[in-house]
Amino acid sequence: MTLTVERRAAVLGADELAALDARWRAANYLTAGQLYLLGNPLLTEPLRPEHIKPRLLGHWGTSPGLNLLHAHLNRVIRARDLDAMCVWGPGHGGPAVVAGTWLDGTWSEVYPDVPRDGAGMARLFRQFSFPGGVPSHVAPDVPGSIHEGGELGYSLAHAYGAALDNPGLLVACVIGDGEAETGPLAGSWHANKFLDPVHDGAVLPVLHLNGWKIANPAVLARLPEEELTQLLRGYGHDPLFVSGDRPELVHRELAGALDEAVERIGRLQRAARGGAAGGVRERPRWPVIVLRTPKGWTGPDEVDGLPVAGTWRSHQVPLDGVRENPRHLRQLETWLRSYRPEELFDELGRPRDAVLAQVPQGTRRLGSTPHANGGLLLRELPVPPLEAAAVKVARPGSTLHEPTQVLGTLLTELMRATAARRDFRLMGPDETASNRLDAVYEATGKEWESAVLEVDRHLEHGGRVMEVLSEHLCQGWLEGYLLTGRHGLFSCYEAFVHIVDSMANQHIKWLRSARRLPWRAPIASLNYLLTSHVWRQDHNGFSHQDPGFVDHVLNKSPEVVRVYLPPDANTLLACADHVLRSRDYVNVVVAGKQPCFDWLDLESARAHCARGAGIWEWAGTESAGTGREPDVVLACAGDVPTQETLAAAWLLRRELPGLSVRVVNVVDMARLLPAEEHPHGMSDGEYDALFTRDRPVIFAYHGYPWLIHRLTYRRAGHDQLHVRGYREEGTTTTPFDMVVRNDLDRYRLVMDVIDRVPGLAVRAAGVRQRMADVRFRHERWIREHGDDLPEVSGWRWDDGEGGGS
Amino acid sequence: MTLTVERRAAVLGADELAALDARWRAANYLTAGQLYLLGNPLLTEPLRPEHIKPRLLGHWGTSPGLNLLHAHLNRVIRARDLDAMCVWGPGHGGPAVVAGTWLDGTWSEVYPDVPRDGAGMARLFRQFSFPGGVPSHVAPDVPGSIHEGGELGYSLAHAYGAALDNPGLLVACVIGDGEAETGPLAGSWHANKFLDPVHDGAVLPVLHLNGWKIANPAVLARLPEEELTQLLRGYGHDPLFVSGDRPELVHRELAGALDEAVERIGRLQRAARGGAAGGVRERPRWPVIVLRTPKGWTGPDEVDGLPVAGTWRSHQVPLDGVRENPRHLRQLETWLRSYRPEELFDELGRPRDAVLAQVPQGTRRLGSTPHANGGLLLRELPVPPLEAAAVKVARPGSTLHEPTQVLGTLLTELMRATAARRDFRLMGPDETASNRLDAVYEATGKEWESAVLEVDRHLEHGGRVMEVLSEHLCQGWLEGYLLTGRHGLFSCYEAFVHIVDSMANQHIKWLRSARRLPWRAPIASLNYLLTSHVWRQDHNGFSHQDPGFVDHVLNKSPEVVRVYLPPDANTLLACADHVLRSRDYVNVVVAGKQPCFDWLDLESARAHCARGAGIWEWAGTESAGTGREPDVVLACAGDVPTQETLAAAWLLRRELPGLSVRVVNVVDMARLLPAEEHPHGMSDGEYDALFTRDRPVIFAYHGYPWLIHRLTYRRAGHDQLHVRGYREEGTTTTPFDMVVRNDLDRYRLVMDVIDRVPGLAVRAAGVRQRMADVRFRHERWIREHGDDLPEVSGWRWDDGEGGGS
Repeated sequence: MTLTVERRAAVLGADELAALDARWRAANYLTAGQLYLLGNPLLTEPLRPEHIKPRLLGHWGTSPGLNLLHAHLNRVIRARDLDAMCVWGPGHGGPAVVAGTWLDGTWSEVYPDVPRDGAGMARLFRQFSFPGGVPSHVAPDVPGSIHEGGELGYSLAHAYGAALDNPGLLVACVIGDGEAETGPLAGSWHANKFLDPVHDGAVLPVLHLNGWKIANPAVLARLPEEELTQLLRGYGHDPLFVSGDRPELVHRELAGALDEAVERIGRLQRAARGGAAGGVRERPRWPVIVLRTPKGWTGPDEVDGLPVAGTWRSHQVPLDGVRENPRHLRQLETWLRSYRPEELFDELGRPRDAVLAQVPQGTRRLGSTPHANGGLLLRELPVPPLEAAAVKVARPGSTLHEPTQVLGTLLTELMRATAARRDFRLMGPDETASNRLDAVYEATGKEWESAVLEVDRHLEHGGRVMEVLSEHLCQGWLEGYLLTGRHGLFSCYEAFVHIVDSMANQHIKWLRSARRLPWRAPIASLNYLLTSHVWRQDHNGFSHQDPGFVDHVLNKSPEVVRVYLPPDANTLLACADHVLRSRDYVNVVVAGKQPCFDWLDLESARAHCARGAGIWEWAGTESAGTGREPDVVLACAGDVPTQETLAAAWLLRRELPGLSVRVVNVVDMARLLPAEEHPHGMSDGEYDALFTRDRPVIFAYHGYPWLIHRLTYRRAGHDQLHVRGYREEGTTTTPFDMVVRNDLDRYRLVMDVIDRVPGLAVRAAGVRQRMADVRFRHERWIREHGDDLPEVSGWRWDDGEGGGS
Repeated sequence: MTLTVERRAAVLGADELAALDARWRAANYLTAGQLYLLGNPLLTEPLRPEHIKPRLLGHWGTSPGLNLLHAHLNRVIRARDLDAMCVWGPGHGGPAVVAGTWLDGTWSEVYPDVPRDGAGMARLFRQFSFPGGVPSHVAPDVPGSIHEGGELGYSLAHAYGAALDNPGLLVACVIGDGEAETGPLAGSWHANKFLDPVHDGAVLPVLHLNGWKIANPAVLARLPEEELTQLLRGYGHDPLFVSGDRPELVHRELAGALDEAVERIGRLQRAARGGAAGGVRERPRWPVIVLRTPKGWTGPDEVDGLPVAGTWRSHQVPLDGVRENPRHLRQLETWLRSYRPEELFDELGRPRDAVLAQVPQGTRRLGSTPHANGGLLLRELPVPPLEAAAVKVARPGSTLHEPTQVLGTLLTELMRATAARRDFRLMGPDETASNRLDAVYEATGKEWESAVLEVDRHLEHGGRVMEVLSEHLCQGWLEGYLLTGRHGLFSCYEAFVHIVDSMANQHIKWLRSARRLPWRAPIASLNYLLTSHVWRQDHNGFSHQDPGFVDHVLNKSPEVVRVYLPPDANTLLACADHVLRSRDYVNVVVAGKQPCFDWLDLESARAHCARGAGIWEWAGTESAGTGREPDVVLACAGDVPTQETLAAAWLLRRELPGLSVRVVNVVDMARLLPAEEHPHGMSDGEYDALFTRDRPVIFAYHGYPWLIHRLTYRRAGHDQLHVRGYREEGTTTTPFDMVVRNDLDRYRLVMDVIDRVPGLAVRAAGVRQRMADVRFRHERWIREHGDDLPEVSGWRWDDGEGGGS
């Protein structure tokens, strides 16, 4: 190896060079035009204040670099008929990517009211960052994009997600030197250890060092070149360097670097794909391009005596107050005319041939690749019939299964069914086995490209389980995979999914916006399986306890978010079946991995999940058909609360046989919302039919109790609603101690019933005392024995004593 | 430079070697004992099933490595009388760190019921992962720890935070190869570019490669050594390698590496500190140690025929079912006896002299350094008088200021006041200037150790503003800084603070637990300033809109979390004054950076913030002293909702002069909660006195509207409460268009009043129509002009037309 910095210059013909430069200048002109111009788009007359936008908004600094790369990617795509897409990490450079797609014709194809001519250019300029117009970041509105880039850090993970199982695809990924400082991006470099050169496509990262962020130099831009080379080699890449501020030289160097990178990628892929079966395979050293050009390049060098181009001052609009300041107006005009628009656009505002000479055709254009509108490529997922995986349930509560383990058998069949298609992946931060989904290894392995030792298990080139100890990477990979038209599931410890709160936010926002664009085809939903949840802390503890992701997502657009809390194995299967087939949602499924009573057979589970919430007649003591409301409703959502609720119902049946108790289980949390607030919401009539209008409701909920109030505060019976849930009380302890610490245990629920049903307080004082006594006994027992009371751990619903069915 | 892997072996005397090994064996014995033993701690009799815990919990795999490092750190600390602390990244190895502090005597000092003898050892074993006992991770319960380690990724950021402004301190930081895969950790390596060798202490990262995570090999452990060397050099470090599985050789290598690292650190510090003033200073290349030892080293090599030590199978308990399985019971006994406990502990269970020979004394012990119980070192922050920074307010709403800019002038004085003490820092992800706090640069610069160019501004060796484009690093640095007894503020874009949701969770949990430990001294609160908020999206957009961090933190322990929404500049100052002086809280302050009307003078602001919520008599139209309730309450929280509410009150005064309107402003969100649920909560009497029991309340809230319902659902007047807030509707648009899109605008609020005050619907139908007309006019105006209606952007409270005061 050598640590000399590697540079290659291409031999470019005069025409090629001219075309590259024309395309670049045209895009720069269009970018600046979007920032500044309300009228006079072709500068057919001298600029006047009324031609200038009243609010000058947008990011100029990163844009010339993005435009340069767009022009050069066009060249290599066209020259080699490449199937390629690009993830634009510096998504702040929205106007640049908009300019590129307008030049390529794709913008006008999806927005025919913005044609590729002077009138269209005027509209293009006006709509940018204009109220009701085009956002300033690379939003879903931009054809060819799968990446917003407003919140930085996820471009490289998205690029790798797009490349998985797309062996013919090249995914270029522009990484800004600002974004490169974020943790998620820094961790994403190692994604190259999980990219199979045979079954997956290639990712070509382009680290764009323009030197500055909003107000500060960028860390990587100030590394000595040798240190940066070591870093990128340490990441497992072979870097190619391009730098300069003289366009002609940079064009030659960048063209050379791209040619070299694409050729190296081809060689590495051919070597892996033609290799002898079973032979030891080296992890490829993929190329990376380091592009060092000035921030705000080609923009004003100085404004009011201060340097601007090549400094942080060109981050947003380099010239401000242009309407009011005649000197700035003149400077803007000079700047815009420096691109020689008359050479770039004809008198009707159409790009001239030279500008378009290297634009690829049809779906080869970066703006129209179907990979970036993944719904176009999406195939129905062959979810296997649930019957084979389902557990037999002769009587409710007579058997126990680990719900996620049962789901694992379904996923195994799904992995088999997609073995040839390769369009389903399972992501997990080193937790697939811990979350009891390890049956899938019968069907596929864990993708792994590094060295393998004899003791290793289930590691596999081309395995479709992705395991890395980074929730950010799991989420980013999955987003990239889904946005390019495939399917997947992310299984995660419940508490730690908050690590990707903000990524979930951004994906939900993307989906909300994309759903409003008729040309974006629906994509597969992003499905979370949250397990190892708050109520089972046998060997973790307080730091592992947070059920609040549900609260987080329920703040977002109701057209996108769905939350399911299946109470047992078969309901988990029914939920999984539904979410895996769904489109354009973010589905959160919370389910336990520990042995859990089976309450419903598959048919009942399906019906229950379809309703989303329902009365479990077999569990209550209402007299059917009397038309009388019960004395109390025991409601529950989540596996452990359901168990405690049924145990409470069992105790009430034994202790207070005259009491009329209804048990309601909620699977689909959005059902609790009013119908006008969420597509799954219940009408008041439906709600009252389940919960009554005036009877006490004791609601045992999996998460923070006030969420239930937040969902139901408009309901008639809300004043009678009493919710138990997790209240940030916990440590490393037994399952039953966790519910006792949070007042969610069966004995507490019975006490709640006695406290709230009118007239019971006196009549059932003895029962109440007995319940309190057991809780007291629990406190002592657990301190002595370190384990739960035998009457709790040995409890069964179908024990004759309590009744059962 | 050379890429040969660097190893050093120390010349250790036989006594030294024996002491290191005895200390290590003793800690390993105590670790295994905690996992397994309920009785017979010294193995004075053969192990029987009843000596074994009923639930076998904890993490063995990482523990021998932590124990090895603890023993060796003791040696270098003692040999050099170092002021040192250690951040144990693999916090899952709780029993190891517990064992170390028990051996050092610190555990018994803070928990006298667990003395350093046989009885104490029995209790130590029993309490670990026992219900109500000691958590399995390095929780706040562990003396010497500032880092929980249950959620991985933050150890290195914590270590750097601890080292800032502690020039005499060495912070060792053990990074597991699992944690190293996370984004936050990967991004933290570059923190060395922000560590000033003069004013700050040193961080010595120890990358511990034991090869495996729960179920998978670790990425860094499988890098070829040369690639890993490049990576660490690319991070700016000089690596020293230690590897092996023969204790004697590893002891010599590790001792040599630690000696060498500590000496290099001293040389680098002396070079920087003795350097000529003003000379160009090279960024130091700090050492890093790579320690490669087997996972679960010294534990069972094989169990039931499968390899365990050196594989993922030793991640948790390597031998299971020990109570039931006699073969496993024998194997456990053999394993425990392999440490030769009789050589390590005397017959009373006290560690023998050889074990303690290298333990440092007093506060030099890792378990008792005051840096890890930072409240002991904390000094009162000299917050300057607010008068100098406060804005003059002759009449409400007659002037405008940028609240964060005003805060900036206070922070500037605070930076000056702490210039010598160096115990206050400001953190921001490249946003300090964007958030209008840049006045602080008059008092201090931005810490920066890389190359500096002529155009750079405010970069400074030893500057106390920390700017890096990583919310994770900002948060991690600040946590480390606070936990070691200093003060700080994190200013962040509101939407992107969700990036650190999970870190905030963990810090809140830490504080909640630490508050319950009498020996932990209170530390300064973690203060967030959330700005660039949802309502001002002039040049950002939908991806920058999320006010949900408030919801997130309000799910956590009420004893720790506080949320403030000051409505103007002076209230922001009053809130800042309060939060900067507070202890053991996480304070979230949300405030705008755009020009905002000044409503309160400093005295009124102080009084209003002290109350947390209050009636603004001057803004309403109630007749004082009549004892009559108003017709309607206009409530508001947040700067933009307050402005819209006052504009609505202004409109009502003009349009419906007979209407009795009360205006209530809420600064402290927890005031809305019942008194029994939050220390700041109001009694029902207080609440009713503000909001009435039965009048319509139109509440304009900064964030998601249902939060207000969640806080108030128990209140008498809740059925009459109507909340407006952010509902995920937005794009890049004008300030007023943002509130219109979310129905929070003044005209909508007036319409809400008309719709809800009995009898108004008919009487004020014309007014309602006029309000609707303006909204309609707005829609058209903005599409044409790209800017807000002049009557909106030019509106002033003290305009004679509407009344005002």
